[in-house]
Amino acid sequence: MRMVDVIDKKRNGGELSDDEIKFFVDGVVSGEIPDYQTSALLMSIYFKDMNDHERSQLTLEMMKSGDRIDLSGVPGIKVDKHSTGGVGDKVSLPLAAMVAATGIPVPMISGRGLGHTGGTLDKLEAIPGYRVEISQQDFIDQVRREKLAIIGATGNIAPADKKIYALRDVTDTVDSIPLIASSIMSKKIASGTDALVIDVKTGAGAFMKTLPESQALAEALVEIGKRVGMQCMAVISDMNQPLGRKVGNTLEIEETLDTLKGRGPQDLLELVLTLGSYMVVLGEKAGNEDEARAMLERTIEDGSALDRFRAMVVAQGGDGRVVDDYGLMPHAKYRIELPAKRSGYVSQMLADEVGVASMKLGGGREKADDRLDYGVGIELNKKVGDQVREGESLLTICSDREDVEDIKELLYGCIEIGEKVEPYPMVYKIIK
Amino acid sequence: MRMVDVIDKKRNGGELSDDEIKFFVDGVVSGEIPDYQTSALLMSIYFKDMNDHERSQLTLEMMKSGDRIDLSGVPGIKVDKHSTGGVGDKVSLPLAAMVAATGIPVPMISGRGLGHTGGTLDKLEAIPGYRVEISQQDFIDQVRREKLAIIGATGNIAPADKKIYALRDVTDTVDSIPLIASSIMSKKIASGTDALVIDVKTGAGAFMKTLPESQALAEALVEIGKRVGMQCMAVISDMNQPLGRKVGNTLEIEETLDTLKGRGPQDLLELVLTLGSYMVVLGEKAGNEDEARAMLERTIEDGSALDRFRAMVVAQGGDGRVVDDYGLMPHAKYRIELPAKRSGYVSQMLADEVGVASMKLGGGREKADDRLDYGVGIELNKKVGDQVREGESLLTICSDREDVEDIKELLYGCIEIGEKVEPYPMVYKIIK
Repeated sequence: MRMVDVIDKKRNGGELSDDEIKFFVDGVVSGEIPDYQTSALLMSIYFKDMNDHERSQLTLEMMKSGDRIDLSGVPGIKVDKHSTGGVGDKVSLPLAAMVAATGIPVPMISGRGLGHTGGTLDKLEAIPGYRVEISQQDFIDQVRREKLAIIGATGNIAPADKKIYALRDVTDTVDSIPLIASSIMSKKIASGTDALVIDVKTGAGAFMKTLPESQALAEALVEIGKRVGMQCMAVISDMNQPLGRKVGNTLEIEETLDTLKGRGPQDLLELVLTLGSYMVVLGEKAGNEDEARAMLERTIEDGSALDRFRAMVVAQGGDGRVVDDYGLMPHAKYRIELPAKRSGYVSQMLADEVGVASMKLGGGREKADDRLDYGVGIELNKKVGDQVREGESLLTICSDREDVEDIKELLYGCIEIGEKVEPYPMVYKIIK
Repeated sequence: MRMVDVIDKKRNGGELSDDEIKFFVDGVVSGEIPDYQTSALLMSIYFKDMNDHERSQLTLEMMKSGDRIDLSGVPGIKVDKHSTGGVGDKVSLPLAAMVAATGIPVPMISGRGLGHTGGTLDKLEAIPGYRVEISQQDFIDQVRREKLAIIGATGNIAPADKKIYALRDVTDTVDSIPLIASSIMSKKIASGTDALVIDVKTGAGAFMKTLPESQALAEALVEIGKRVGMQCMAVISDMNQPLGRKVGNTLEIEETLDTLKGRGPQDLLELVLTLGSYMVVLGEKAGNEDEARAMLERTIEDGSALDRFRAMVVAQGGDGRVVDDYGLMPHAKYRIELPAKRSGYVSQMLADEVGVASMKLGGGREKADDRLDYGVGIELNKKVGDQVREGESLLTICSDREDVEDIKELLYGCIEIGEKVEPYPMVYKIIK
């Protein structure tokens, strides 16, 4: 088999055979296929797409290129959640704790933030002592014992995806649905989970800006899940404005804990309950979503979800006292208000720009090796649909530097105040 | 400037700026742009094309990446011819001699054959002693003195094209009109000619199989010529069946000499006179094509074209006596006839397959470093439109091996005998 013929087939719109996909993935991992041929195929896939069968085969071959975590020793149906990433998206944290509190094992392998989006691992590292890198065996043991663990990629998971992703990043082939979907699913299958709920974000702060794009990705992910035998469904949720009321690492741990204590923001709670109820049904702890939702609400009321979160923090070396004392986490030196320049209703608050503002304060990464200031970020005092009076604070900038004129300018530029508008729906669509 | 942004612009169908094209070409030559990004851009150009301005800028930048031969010391308008390549295509040889005999300097830089197509340099090397590699200064001197020289690429001509072409070959981005056209034209401009006539082949044995494709390429070439200030026009000619009656290196030199002696095949002569008459007009030795054609016919009648050919052979170290004694060139050991299996009219004789047959006999290259048997090839006794009786020889296989059953099978497979058909037109279209 010659790689140039594989490229030719895809370039001309053909369907790659299972053997051709295996040849490609094996060749990428072994290094026998040079990067310039890989990038030519990736660009051809960008233009000509892959059908459902090709996508699932690519997923399986990338999964098989590395290790697969064996969670079979953990009793029960393991259920994970994946998000395509957004701003203020701390959903995984309260969600994992609440679902684990219903008795479902939640083995979660998360990532770091880049650009305007935050990363679950970064947020957890705001907790003094929390270790995201633990051994595969400790991960398995913790999931068995505590019902949840949130860690970084461990061992040799989907090395083909690592290589391909690095190349996509520099050859402008990131935004291709077959490539995104196979990348996500190969890692999730390798992580050993039995079932998966996916939160596909849509809107200004999301990777997919429009509902049709987001729906296409959600359908691709669920279809791959079906074809490879993983229980899988997707929720399309709003990312036009930041999720919840806090953006930043310490700030989002605070909001997580508030949510687990029953005093979190409504939009965040709504999304957590929606995603969680599907997870509980997939985990077979409830017969339907309403029953599941009630169970999850009880995990807040009875403190069992907060208990699970504390147990995870302690198991991973973190200071469990943060649950009661937020002051143990780093905080910014200055709190600077952003007053409304006129009265009216907030009609826009672009999530991506708020994410960039938080990044520029030091809360996120411009480049992969940037260091973070955990305490900085943005607290939203108003959200889209809220009424505001001139001079009233729209948001609070939590900064380690006193001069934040650049950040203020950026934020004023992404917030519009106008006529009364309806708040965005939190959930647009469910794909099963 | 970042290469990934240049890729993104083209991938999304945008027009690259002059600076972006220069950045790309410079980066390819310096090695600063890695091959995987180059191939991603090439594939994006394949899918999204380039407009006329981008094509001419790419051509100019590739030309500027290396040396340009300075023919300004040679008096007169220098006129060259380029062919997109075919089977039995020895046109350059009689054409250059005839045009030179009218007093126009013809500085021709030719190539070698690969696959089913032959190369002008290979054919000339069938002449004992002929050197295709001569210095740039000797080339210039010879064009001044003898009015013609046919040599291989000399010096550092369009190194950007060399690198890009090597990558196109292995990344399935060869058949892209902006890339083909800029590759051809960058080298021709660098070769120092003032004017150019291009023979774009169309049909089974051509790179472009259909008339619309061939026309698009011809128009692209002529348009680039206009934009970079080179007098340029194109002829679209038939390559469904081989050109002339001989395919092979020695065999095509024989046919060249026969043509210069006034006894060549009609189709070859017709194409040579068509291309030549445009060259003579561009070289301002005649006011119109009819006058030019008459001048060219006289160069055969008075022996001046044959004299120019002999002079070139001698100047480049070859044995000038071949002009009169074909026996001085290598010939095949065996001549094997291919009898018609039925009576009727030849309705098809696929040029590419005949080219492959000649290659398999040893007359062409499967890989770039294959060595050639100069004497072998195919002599066509019948061409499309000719009547044939069962048992009559369709063609003669000139081979150094006695067993040519594989070649016979291949050739029978590409020749059809059926009802009476019209011969193909030699010239389909003129693009000025």
